[in-house]
Amino acid sequence: MSSTFGTLFRTTTFGESHGKSVGAIIDGCPARLPLTEADIQPQLSRRRPGQSALTTPRDEEDRVTILSGTENGLTLGTPIGLSVNNRDQRPHDYNEKNAIPRPSHADYTYLMKYGIRASSGGGRSSARETIGRVAAGAIAEKWLKVRFGGVSIVAYVSSVSDLIAPDLADQEITREMVDSTLVRCPDADTAKKMIAAIEQARDEKDSLGGTLTCICRGFPAGLGEPVFDKLEAKLAQAMLSIPAVKGFEIGSGFAGTRMRGSQHNDVFVQKSGRLGTKTNFSGGVQGGISNGEPIVFRIAIKPVATIGQPQATTGLDGTSVILEAKGRHDPCVLPRAIPIVEAMTALVLADAALRQEYRF
Amino acid sequence: MSSTFGTLFRTTTFGESHGKSVGAIIDGCPARLPLTEADIQPQLSRRRPGQSALTTPRDEEDRVTILSGTENGLTLGTPIGLSVNNRDQRPHDYNEKNAIPRPSHADYTYLMKYGIRASSGGGRSSARETIGRVAAGAIAEKWLKVRFGGVSIVAYVSSVSDLIAPDLADQEITREMVDSTLVRCPDADTAKKMIAAIEQARDEKDSLGGTLTCICRGFPAGLGEPVFDKLEAKLAQAMLSIPAVKGFEIGSGFAGTRMRGSQHNDVFVQKSGRLGTKTNFSGGVQGGISNGEPIVFRIAIKPVATIGQPQATTGLDGTSVILEAKGRHDPCVLPRAIPIVEAMTALVLADAALRQEYRF
Amino acid sequence: MSSTFGTLFRTTTFGESHGKSVGAIIDGCPARLPLTEADIQPQLSRRRPGQSALTTPRDEEDRVTILSGTENGLTLGTPIGLSVNNRDQRPHDYNEKNAIPRPSHADYTYLMKYGIRASSGGGRSSARETIGRVAAGAIAEKWLKVRFGGVSIVAYVSSVSDLIAPDLADQEITREMVDSTLVRCPDADTAKKMIAAIEQARDEKDSLGGTLTCICRGFPAGLGEPVFDKLEAKLAQAMLSIPAVKGFEIGSGFAGTRMRGSQHNDVFVQKSGRLGTKTNFSGGVQGGISNGEPIVFRIAIKPVATIGQPQATTGLDGTSVILEAKGRHDPCVLPRAIPIVEAMTALVLADAALRQEYRF
Amino acid sequence: MSSTFGTLFRTTTFGESHGKSVGAIIDGCPARLPLTEADIQPQLSRRRPGQSALTTPRDEEDRVTILSGTENGLTLGTPIGLSVNNRDQRPHDYNEKNAIPRPSHADYTYLMKYGIRASSGGGRSSARETIGRVAAGAIAEKWLKVRFGGVSIVAYVSSVSDLIAPDLADQEITREMVDSTLVRCPDADTAKKMIAAIEQARDEKDSLGGTLTCICRGFPAGLGEPVFDKLEAKLAQAMLSIPAVKGFEIGSGFAGTRMRGSQHNDVFVQKSGRLGTKTNFSGGVQGGISNGEPIVFRIAIKPVATIGQPQATTGLDGTSVILEAKGRHDPCVLPRAIPIVEAMTALVLADAALRQEYRF
Repeated sequence: MSSTFGTLFRTTTFGESHGKSVGAIIDGCPARLPLTEADIQPQLSRRRPGQSALTTPRDEEDRVTILSGTENGLTLGTPIGLSVNNRDQRPHDYNEKNAIPRPSHADYTYLMKYGIRASSGGGRSSARETIGRVAAGAIAEKWLKVRFGGVSIVAYVSSVSDLIAPDLADQEITREMVDSTLVRCPDADTAKKMIAAIEQARDEKDSLGGTLTCICRGFPAGLGEPVFDKLEAKLAQAMLSIPAVKGFEIGSGFAGTRMRGSQHNDVFVQKSGRLGTKTNFSGGVQGGISNGEPIVFRIAIKPVATIGQPQATTGLDGTSVILEAKGRHDPCVLPRAIPIVEAMTALVLADAALRQEYRF
Repeated sequence: MSSTFGTLFRTTTFGESHGKSVGAIIDGCPARLPLTEADIQPQLSRRRPGQSALTTPRDEEDRVTILSGTENGLTLGTPIGLSVNNRDQRPHDYNEKNAIPRPSHADYTYLMKYGIRASSGGGRSSARETIGRVAAGAIAEKWLKVRFGGVSIVAYVSSVSDLIAPDLADQEITREMVDSTLVRCPDADTAKKMIAAIEQARDEKDSLGGTLTCICRGFPAGLGEPVFDKLEAKLAQAMLSIPAVKGFEIGSGFAGTRMRGSQHNDVFVQKSGRLGTKTNFSGGVQGGISNGEPIVFRIAIKPVATIGQPQATTGLDGTSVILEAKGRHDPCVLPRAIPIVEAMTALVLADAALRQEYRF
Repeated sequence: MSSTFGTLFRTTTFGESHGKSVGAIIDGCPARLPLTEADIQPQLSRRRPGQSALTTPRDEEDRVTILSGTENGLTLGTPIGLSVNNRDQRPHDYNEKNAIPRPSHADYTYLMKYGIRASSGGGRSSARETIGRVAAGAIAEKWLKVRFGGVSIVAYVSSVSDLIAPDLADQEITREMVDSTLVRCPDADTAKKMIAAIEQARDEKDSLGGTLTCICRGFPAGLGEPVFDKLEAKLAQAMLSIPAVKGFEIGSGFAGTRMRGSQHNDVFVQKSGRLGTKTNFSGGVQGGISNGEPIVFRIAIKPVATIGQPQATTGLDGTSVILEAKGRHDPCVLPRAIPIVEAMTALVLADAALRQEYRF
Repeated sequence: MSSTFGTLFRTTTFGESHGKSVGAIIDGCPARLPLTEADIQPQLSRRRPGQSALTTPRDEEDRVTILSGTENGLTLGTPIGLSVNNRDQRPHDYNEKNAIPRPSHADYTYLMKYGIRASSGGGRSSARETIGRVAAGAIAEKWLKVRFGGVSIVAYVSSVSDLIAPDLADQEITREMVDSTLVRCPDADTAKKMIAAIEQARDEKDSLGGTLTCICRGFPAGLGEPVFDKLEAKLAQAMLSIPAVKGFEIGSGFAGTRMRGSQHNDVFVQKSGRLGTKTNFSGGVQGGISNGEPIVFRIAIKPVATIGQPQATTGLDGTSVILEAKGRHDPCVLPRAIPIVEAMTALVLADAALRQEYRF
């Protein structure tokens, strides 16, 4: 188990669905940062289920408490303990599914690794594990904003199934624009179609995947730690550590492989007070270091594994079984994944900024 | 700068184009592993340029020397020092290009980060940096084979520009099959077209990108360290740390986002002596832990930034310039990237295997 | 701030005197270890103040709660969250002392480092910080006992001021024997004198230091990670990280520097079923690796800095002041330090055991 | 095996007596530091044997080569590779001693840990392992001097057996003063007696231990990373990782345990432009953070285990044997240990300085 992320801005998370609480310790957050629970709660609230008809109806309140590390609204430089109670544990809800490993869940692999079966099946593969990340990320983001002024990190749903939003990289998307539609796609027309598709999948007891795009503006040039902790490498690790993420691409990504070097190269142009690039196929990084352009990346999220339809699968004892999930399930987790993606991005950027070596 | 990879099987690399040598220290390789230079050299030779008309003609010999850590052909458990001399340094070759930052190279970002300009421009973003990785990866691979019997790690070129090889995931591709074509695509027909496309790009002083697919067989179930060092997260970090890589996807990846849960779920079936999955959209991992199925992932490599065509760009002083690279350049690095991808994969898998916690 | 200890058995602590709680996350504890709060509470209770007339009278209950990582009394392999509430915060108690930095406390250095003054003065230099360590250590110790059978870790007070207990290295001291005297020195005669000396120091509003000896039996040979994480090096780091510790010596330690090699060398003898040493001047380690003999080390603890006597010192503004601490204070922290020393020792040994590399 | 030290200024060493070379990679050294081999060689030369009649006569040249990381005499910010050839390997010299584990060497423990016997017996417990540390430390020291102006790190022999130098903490000892006597004790009278004692031990085929004192001046207040990487904790780890070191004490150390708090507390006084302390029983650190006073610590070094006298011991097969070392041996390693202690100190201080968190 590896539950710590970061070298200087270090987040260690704990908790699964059925314990007393979930949370995190943030160690290495600089002192004198103004910080209260009110800085953390909004992203937690964006993450929690039960926000709309599109998501799972369980109403988890997810109220965060700062246990240590601040006094009079300022960080002390000491570890910040964060905790969110597990109020609605309902361990019996999952019992039937536990009897046999659920397809494309982590029940089987956790059992193979740890030799024990948690009542939730997949232990820390539960979505509740991400609460600690979101809380920690909110602190990292606060620090980035205080440290660098205009840093912004905004993710949005760029596709659901085969419904693809138009390219919005040129617009300055805000979180308000993202939250203006239920599906968190800032393009209203596409959002409408996405919502219809999700509702249809829900009615058919099925689930949908899609992609998220994340854009970071205002992060200065010169940050990132080649060669193994290149900015894009840490972003990729951070993203693939989020449940259900199956792909990551930065800048031109996979589409860029079909371009020629003469098209793809980002030639330099003079921008206000700094050297910038005319295009941004690099996605804001070159050689693992930020170049001052927006950092733009996209991730792939698989269709949720928990579906209401019966599935013909095999139990641990080798016998064929029909598995049928009860209750209502989230047919599409993309809208709720947005604050998680933003949080992990903030953790990567804050750590890269703090790791920047002393310059003579 | 972060030049160490791994928690227990730890590789630290050093060296850039213009120093005396490049290499690595491998710390944490178990004792009593049979190991000589002959185990390492083949992958280094696959990596080096000048192997064919398709790659850069510089003939670097890249002969590895083991400096420490073995005796009488066995590892001692102590750090293994590896060194490859830089014989063909030719520092003046790059001078002209250094005067202004080359588009989509790391010249500019290294300068922003370190405040100093190495004669090669981008310091450790040079392809020679990967020699230490390939050498270390060969040792990791040797250990995996001795430890787990049938482990195999094979990467191949699955697309060049818009030329896409048929899906080969069902075949047991070998390195011999991969090396049977100049372009290292095991499908002969596609390979022929790829070679023609690369030759044309070379003649037009341009460059091409593409994708590599990597398949690991025989890696046991139960390995990987959730939540931040999930197997797919470490693979993603490892891949995005390789120069020119812009994307990573595992299993169904981005294409899987257009599937429904009912199609995408990998239901369990009884396989010889173990529980397996009928399909492998998960790509061999669930919840960050291997499930015993082949680990399959794909990476995107951008078209090489160094091209012979003149480029209209801007110098550090803000003046517009035409930049023209001299000499011959590699129009497509994909074939040479294969041993690097295999090496980084081996480093991830060996570390995951060693990190597996004690089980009662 | 660096609040994480260990490579595979990793403890991250949080909390200071005036927040909501203190505690720890233990990441990497193997799965299927039987564990409840009852395994942790005894050492916490041994650590807490108010146990006798010799220690500070504040009655902190220090009741631990497991927040995550176990189910039905077994560890899951996932992070174990631990929390102990701060019930008796009394922030105003320290106000006067905060106006000027207390001599030989960390008030001044924390202010220099973090640029902020916590209401307790020295932030994490508070003794309450050690609660997380003691709780985590109890888990490590439980695992060691289950894993290796007869492992025992026992510390005792071996000197207070110039009152020195006779050498007890040959006896199998138990915790019961240690706790049989108020001062936790298992030699009754010396204990009596120590208690008298401490009571006298208390009456004179002064404080005393001393030494603790720790003996670990049953830890197998071959564990420890040269060269930088040698067993004695990690023990030394662990001990010097405890508040008020100013020295560490293993085996013959400083006294051994006055011996000759011919006296000091531990020659080998045949012991029941294994090779042992006739003497144990090495203290159970050679070259950073355990040799199967008892691991024996001693630490120096300075006299408590908080004293009731007035002290002539200087304020941050450079003016001379007389500082006088109010309330009652602990005249000698050695008895309470014992579970902390045992805990840090257990963390070092458990990590060394888990880090042992795979052996063919 | 753990061969990396440091969090941001990271040194990874490699090599044992019988390989091709020994050396290190320094990763994280800031860019633009003026650096050539001439900055490193002096400390290596102070470390090497054969410097006087007091030390072992093997004349190892120990010439260092910078393999990477610098250009035109400036560091690039990239990893600095360092190598020193093993010219005088003489593997057969040790053969007889290898047949049975040498008392108080690491032959036995390395065998227990790694299951293999290196021809030198104790693998990395060889003194040659320290070459990489000394080279790396010279770079750290250079950076500290450039970064903070007047930083100085000077160690000296403060006792040999029961011959103890007078307290020199008040004098500004220089390396020149230290090197002015063969035994590297700056007090001429004591040095004379020490030399006589060492010569006598040599003639009697025996060996002596002793203590080293190290004083660091000019290191600013506010550096160090509580709680687990407190400055004194990292110094203790660093020192106990050096071969033959059995103890560490900082400031008043073990002697301070016999003082009362009223004597031991370092009250504050106004010094030129800053708050200082009247006494320095704390040894320059409080709560794990430097306070601006000299950092003063002392280490215990055991008498060398290799002696010319016959020793009655036991072989791996359990049979009693008489072990007799041939050739000439170093009767006292203290003088040679000085550059190693200075190097490890520099590595600790440079890392602490770089880790200092961003301050608003």
